[in-house]
Amino acid sequence: MTKSKHRPSDRAVFGRNLKRARHIKGLSQDALAYESSLSRTFVSDVERAARNISIDNMSRLAAALGIPLHELLDPSRFSDPLDAD
Amino acid sequence: MTKSKHRPSDRAVFGRNLKRARHIKGLSQDALAYESSLSRTFVSDVERAARNISIDNMSRLAAALGIPLHELLDPSRFSDPLDAD
Repeated sequence: MTKSKHRPSDRAVFGRNLKRARHIKGLSQDALAYESSLSRTFVSDVERAARNISIDNMSRLAAALGIPLHELLDPSRFSDPLDAD
Repeated sequence: MTKSKHRPSDRAVFGRNLKRARHIKGLSQDALAYESSLSRTFVSDVERAARNISIDNMSRLAAALGIPLHELLDPSRFSDPLDAD
């Protein structure tokens, strides 16, 4: 199973989208952690793609942000036009 | 965090979409398990929403099917018009 060179991992997409969606909602990591009954460190790890997060915890974070989970895994959502490729 | 009564869980959506996408690709559970270096029991559990699967294993299954992960979590994808709600 080869991964295309340029395609970011799903972990990286989820971490980036989570961070951007959190900023759009004006939430701190602490606030998102509280809303999803997770720890701030956990949220920070997930945003840095450093955590092999489970689907149930992904659901919690998505629900806390009020965003469907699939949108947080869509590379075309929350993308920043200034992202240097 | 209240879950709307009628919205299926993300686990259920992923399991249903995985099964339908596998059928569309004409793969058995064994074949998908082999392609994603997972066990057949694991694939079967995931399709029944009985496994709190990790993002890395979700990525493996999506890559083995050649489908972006976010599509396997989208309730509107692979839905069967005959689904009784």
